[in-house]
Formats: sequence, structure tokens, C-alpha cells
Amino acid sequence: MAVLIRNEVFSCFVFYGVLLVMKMYVIAIVTGQVRLRKKAFANPEDALRHGGLQYHREDPYVERCRRAHINDMENILPFLFLGAIYSMTGPSVAAARIHFMVFFMARMLHTIAYLFALQAPTRSLAYIVGQIPCVSMALQILMAVAAYA
Amino acid sequence: MAVLIRNEVFSCFVFYGVLLVMKMYVIAIVTGQVRLRKKAFANPEDALRHGGLQYHREDPYVERCRRAHINDMENILPFLFLGAIYSMTGPSVAAARIHFMVFFMARMLHTIAYLFALQAPTRSLAYIVGQIPCVSMALQILMAVAAYA
Amino acid sequence: MAVLIRNEVFSCFVFYGVLLVMKMYVIAIVTGQVRLRKKAFANPEDALRHGGLQYHREDPYVERCRRAHINDMENILPFLFLGAIYSMTGPSVAAARIHFMVFFMARMLHTIAYLFALQAPTRSLAYIVGQIPCVSMALQILMAVAAYA
Repeated sequence: MAVLIRNEVFSCFVFYGVLLVMKMYVIAIVTGQVRLRKKAFANPEDALRHGGLQYHREDPYVERCRRAHINDMENILPFLFLGAIYSMTGPSVAAARIHFMVFFMARMLHTIAYLFALQAPTRSLAYIVGQIPCVSMALQILMAVAAYA
Repeated sequence: MAVLIRNEVFSCFVFYGVLLVMKMYVIAIVTGQVRLRKKAFANPEDALRHGGLQYHREDPYVERCRRAHINDMENILPFLFLGAIYSMTGPSVAAARIHFMVFFMARMLHTIAYLFALQAPTRSLAYIVGQIPCVSMALQILMAVAAYA
Repeated sequence: MAVLIRNEVFSCFVFYGVLLVMKMYVIAIVTGQVRLRKKAFANPEDALRHGGLQYHREDPYVERCRRAHINDMENILPFLFLGAIYSMTGPSVAAARIHFMVFFMARMLHTIAYLFALQAPTRSLAYIVGQIPCVSMALQILMAVAAYA
């Protein structure tokens, strides 16, 4: 089974994939810290523990963190599927590395642009750039399996 | 590694899985277009770029697109896991193809029913029909690994 | 291909992973039942079918179910990736089983704490305990692929 992990393309995919998962975990931690600092809790039981039911409320920056997290789920989670399958289609190491690295950098920029509310259209451009390697991988996978499906 | 992709069941799964990921990407594009057309932006920086802070607002159709997208994440992403593992349990090509195709068609109908607000219970029925192959695969996987786990 | 499923570590991961996916399906069913019982529908077409547009409204307990479901997506879906890759890095069966079982139990407790609104910080503790095996797997994977990426 370790044969997969020793494949250079697959291990490159895994490397960036795991970093992106950890980046998502960081957003979750940031969200929790902002909730505590701004005293804005989604659940009454959390508000009660931190001062009272008046803190069961929404906060614009908490909602921003939530949107960044959900956008990550919409994009990074499908990447984890596409990248794994694409690695099995026998791409060159160089081509694969570019796909994974562009996606990784675009999503890092996307998160930074979201959390720091950078001027539009920074975040949208990061999103679009990140989609390019994903659509490219999706099309290459479809071509690879078209013969068998 | 390419042995996986040459397996008929797995490549059938990959084919429908990738199409469904692309369908999710289409919902994201539709959401963005509706935001632009209706001038309803989730972030103040986006509203500023498109006319002013008064467009930092919610829109019912944008929210509908969001719900369709999140429902897809709740159902298609677990399918990408179940389908991959199920492919490894040695099902017949015919049985596997039916599982994947029913899920695929049900989720296509689900999206259409959501975005066009088709009369209830069209969307709910599509959701339920899509769950049947998923639960079937989950149970077959549990039976296959029960001996080893 | 069946070689994966016969691997003791991988089949242990698959066992808990599939149970957690089914747990997520249960939250979806609970949400639907609560919507029907409380008459609180996210879509006007659903409200129309169940008594009228006045039931197109939010309900605090429905929103609680939604948050539990989304939190599961944020945590269980990345686990399905990390656990699969971690299984390929050659961990001992005992160590792997502890990782998977701790995550499984923590997420079961997290759902119970969420749906029954248990006193804080029960739910947060369950979340944190569930993150420990995930971060541990992420770091072990990074160490395993560092040589090849």
C-alpha cells in the first residue's frame, strides 16, 4: 500500500493537500478566538458560559470567518478528490507539481484576502486562479477514464 | 498506481464523481452571476466595488443557490468517499454502475429542482433517491470490512 | 485493488469513516423531521406544501441541527482524507486504531452535545479531543511525504 505514498506525484499532492487541511483547521481556531474576543456565540449554552444570553448573537467578523471556511470546503475538499485521482492518471511530475502548487498558493491568498478583507477583486481573483488547476485536473481525469467508464 | 484507474468499476465511479464535482463548480459560478445581476454581495469589499455598501445585502435567490451548494457538499462529498471504497470491495460492474448512475441522476435532478424551485416534493424525492445508493454502498462496505476492522 | 480493503489499518479506518458518514446522514434526517414537526422550511415551495408560506421561516432548533451538520463537514470530511492517507504511511495497527477510535468517539459526543444542547464546554471539548488525532495524522503524513514532495 505504501507504494502510493512513495510515488512522487502522489506525495506532492498529499503534501499540499495536508497543508490545506491544516489551513482549514487554522480558520476554525481563528473563528473560535474571534467568538471569544467579540463575545458572539452561535449557541446559547456557549453564551451562558461566557457572560450571559446577550452574547448569543452574530458578529460580522465571525460571519466573515465562517464564509472563508465554507468557501474552503467548497473548493479544497473537491481538490482532495481531484488531486488524488489525477495523480493516478500518470501526469509528469512537473505538470502535477504546477497544478498542486498553483491551487495551494491561490487558496492561501484567498484566505488572506478573506480574513483581512483585502480590496476587491483580490479574493475573487484568487478563487478563479485556484479553479484553473481544478478544472484542468477534472478534464484530464475525464479523458483518462473515458475509455473505461 | 494506474491500475486503479484502469479498473472498470473505479473508472465508472471516477467518471460520475468528477461530473458531480464539476456540477458543484457550476453552482458556484451561478451564485456569483446571480450576486452580480441582483447586486447582493456577502462582503462589503465586493459591494464597494460594484456600486456601494448598500449592495452588501442578502437576496433570496442567492440564498437558494447557497443552499443548493451546501446540500451538494453534504451529499456529493461523502459519495466521493463511499464510491471510492465501495469500488474496492469487488462489486459487479453492473451493480456498481447502477449505484453511481442513480446517485448522479438524482443529484442532477436535485440541483435542477432547487435552482428552478420546482414544486415540492420533487427536490426532496431527488434527495431521497440519491441517498439509496449511498446507504447501500455504506452497508456493503461495512460488511466487507467487518471481518478485518 | 481489494488489497487495500484487506489491510487491517485501512479497513479499521474505513469502518469508522463509514459509520461517521452514516452519522452525518442521521443529522440530515433529524433536520428534516424537525422542519416538519416545527413547520419551519428553508424554501417557499416546501412551506406551500406543508400549510402555507407563513411556514417559510427559521427555527432555532433547525439552525442548531444545521450547525451540527456543517461542523461535521468541517471535521469529518477532512478526516476521511487524512485517515486514508495516514493508513498508507504504515502505522502500527494499535496506534492507528487509537487515532480512528478517539476521533469517532469525540465526534459522536460532539453530535450528542450539539443536538441535546449539553452544558458548555462539553461540545467544545469533544471538538478539541477530535482534532488531536487529526493533527497527529496530518503531522505523521507530512513527515512521511517530506522526503518525496
